[in-house]
Amino acid sequence: KDEVVTLAHGAGGKATRTLIEALFLEEFGNPRLAPLADAALFDVAGARFAFTTDSYVVKPLFFPGGDIGELAVNGTVNDLAVAGARPLFLTAGFIVEEGFPTADLRRVAASVGRAARAAGVEVVAGDTKVVERGKGDGVYINTSGIGVLEHEHDLSPASVRPGDKVLVSGTLGDHGIAVMVARGSLELEVDLDSDTAPLTELVHGLLSATPGVRCLRDLTRGGLATALNEIADAANVSIVIDEAALPIRPEVNGACEILGIDPLYVANEGKLVAIVAPEALAAAYSALGSSPLGIDTEIVGEVRADAEGMVFLDTAFGGRRVVDVLVGDPLPRIC
Amino acid sequence: KDEVVTLAHGAGGKATRTLIEALFLEEFGNPRLAPLADAALFDVAGARFAFTTDSYVVKPLFFPGGDIGELAVNGTVNDLAVAGARPLFLTAGFIVEEGFPTADLRRVAASVGRAARAAGVEVVAGDTKVVERGKGDGVYINTSGIGVLEHEHDLSPASVRPGDKVLVSGTLGDHGIAVMVARGSLELEVDLDSDTAPLTELVHGLLSATPGVRCLRDLTRGGLATALNEIADAANVSIVIDEAALPIRPEVNGACEILGIDPLYVANEGKLVAIVAPEALAAAYSALGSSPLGIDTEIVGEVRADAEGMVFLDTAFGGRRVVDVLVGDPLPRIC
Ligand SMILES: Nc1ncnc2c1ncn2[C@@H]1O[C@H](COP(=O)(O)OP(=O)(O)OP(=O)(O)O)[C@@H](O)[C@H]1O
Ligand SMILES: Nc1ncnc2c1ncn2[C@@H]1O[C@H](COP(=O)(O)OP(=O)(O)OP(=O)(O)O)[C@@H](O)[C@H]1O
Ligand SMILES: [Mg+2]
Ligand SMILES: [Mg+2]
Ligand SMILES: [Mg+2]
Ligand SMILES: [Mg+2]
Ligand SMILES: [Mg+2]
Ligand SMILES: [Mg+2]
Repeated sequence: KDEVVTLAHGAGGKATRTLIEALFLEEFGNPRLAPLADAALFDVAGARFAFTTDSYVVKPLFFPGGDIGELAVNGTVNDLAVAGARPLFLTAGFIVEEGFPTADLRRVAASVGRAARAAGVEVVAGDTKVVERGKGDGVYINTSGIGVLEHEHDLSPASVRPGDKVLVSGTLGDHGIAVMVARGSLELEVDLDSDTAPLTELVHGLLSATPGVRCLRDLTRGGLATALNEIADAANVSIVIDEAALPIRPEVNGACEILGIDPLYVANEGKLVAIVAPEALAAAYSALGSSPLGIDTEIVGEVRADAEGMVFLDTAFGGRRVVDVLVGDPLPRIC
Repeated sequence: KDEVVTLAHGAGGKATRTLIEALFLEEFGNPRLAPLADAALFDVAGARFAFTTDSYVVKPLFFPGGDIGELAVNGTVNDLAVAGARPLFLTAGFIVEEGFPTADLRRVAASVGRAARAAGVEVVAGDTKVVERGKGDGVYINTSGIGVLEHEHDLSPASVRPGDKVLVSGTLGDHGIAVMVARGSLELEVDLDSDTAPLTELVHGLLSATPGVRCLRDLTRGGLATALNEIADAANVSIVIDEAALPIRPEVNGACEILGIDPLYVANEGKLVAIVAPEALAAAYSALGSSPLGIDTEIVGEVRADAEGMVFLDTAFGGRRVVDVLVGDPLPRIC
């Protein structure tokens, strides 16, 4: 039992999950929240909606390939997209630190505008709070989003079956490493952009191509390892991935070696993992790969019946090791 | 032109409005956001929805009559309610400072649960981020909410007409003063609770009682003065209120005198102002007054055609003075 909140509780891994289940669900859980999916689903007036929220506390606010404003739009759009919804409307709540330059705030707001237009959503409500110097860090943004489901797919992990295939829509860890490099603490000269992007069209293409999509997750905090562990756990299956098949940029691999971390745990902000039925593999692979945001799509593993809840990696050297859930927080405030 | 963000930008008054219009609307404005109403309205599948967001940074986290968790539910519920919507679902994003006691976090989460049940809403999605010590202040919460419109009323300020009457649903400034007293900086022994409460049933009763309701606003940051100025401005009318009719607790008046502030600018979190057609006054007054949260309802003023955009106070001494929009931030971090 942790007596105080630690950075690990915000890392998106084991400690986060424990806090959510043992504290938040305990105190205000309900059937719509309980699946702990990317977005919650509900029905009104015969339509099916997805509703989600994320707060963004990324440091630094501006990094190669994006900034907190763009992240705040794309991140919430992506939680709706992987729920199978078309994102419609966002809210944006700003918590600004006293003394923050209005020019920087405008730059962030402009990014929100640009990203919203690119993703086809409107920010229809906002809020502005200011906290004293030393009680914030420039600006924190919360976005919440609502979308409407356009497809019939049941994308809950419970529909995942042994024999299903695992695809990732592109290179792993780009966002997390780009932010770490931008922080300047690594003595690293790496030319790498965050992959922040809205996944709506990628998902729409995939779901239109085949009815065999079982489950989708955007790869954010905790990376592919955490997403797969959550799916394996919820579906009572194991998942085996193949190290040789994982698309990882050499710059990301290099930075991870220096940082002493595993790229499997590093965040993206414009990638997803898809679990698809074996008979849907070809259609899914070509749908993802033909989308501009999916050109590096790879088939990286498959679902097994044994060892329920476990994730394994077949290494390049012919071994097999357990890929555990993320413990601790190797990369704080990455999103 | 302000070069940096100041506490006044978070006070809900003139500086906040300027920042929203000159910066946020400029960069990502759109027709649904532009009215700057308590909640944005949109239609999907033949139903009409309200969508809103607020972040809560109140200090201290726990105060007489409530805490940040209860506030975060009721505040967002109330922005939906005064839009004429029945609140259905909320999201809750927590930004926790490293080192925050988990026991306090549980207390806050329990309040969220209790308030949600009391207001008849479900928190269906959440998010948990942790920032380093000194980059937050215990916990900040964003809640966003979605509701469905059940009434035919057009509650935009544009429908306000000269001759309309102004009602407030109870005593002014309770929340703001309760929080200031809890902060302990006043050498004040005042026994006063925040009025935080969900206004859904109060509004539903009012809107069911008469078609003559023109406009509603919950009284939060900036108090009655700010709400009336915004309405007068949007409706191109003036509003005259009568000091003698204003319901204000003696404790609130006393504390305001010590603080050197005007109770007209102090926040509530469980009160609203209603502008109603003259022929609807009796029905509105009795509908509000018969609801448990409206027992101190008073008719406090009326709408005039001259002096567009201005608000006036007829003082107890027979004079008339201008009630301007809030400038500066007399009570920072009240919600
Ligand atoms: N404080 C909280 N209270 C209630 N539910 C929460 C809370 N924090 C997270 N959740 C829920 O837990 C699940 C996982 O949340 P998480 O934030 O890890 O997902 P995500 O948004 O997909 O990831 P990321 O935040 O890294 O983008 C979601 O269903 C979310 O609604
Ligand atoms: N940063 C922002 N970006 C875009 N719109 C904003 C922003 N902040 C506020 N708004 C919009 O401005 C209007 C007024 O916001 P404000 O927060 O003052 O209202 P409120 O929530 O009713 O009051 P309070 O926050 O005191 O409860 C709302 O329509 C809101 O959507
Ligand atoms: Mg997600
Ligand atoms: Mg997310
Ligand atoms: Mg607000
Ligand atoms: Mg309001
Ligand atoms: Mg509000
Ligand atoms: Mg999240």
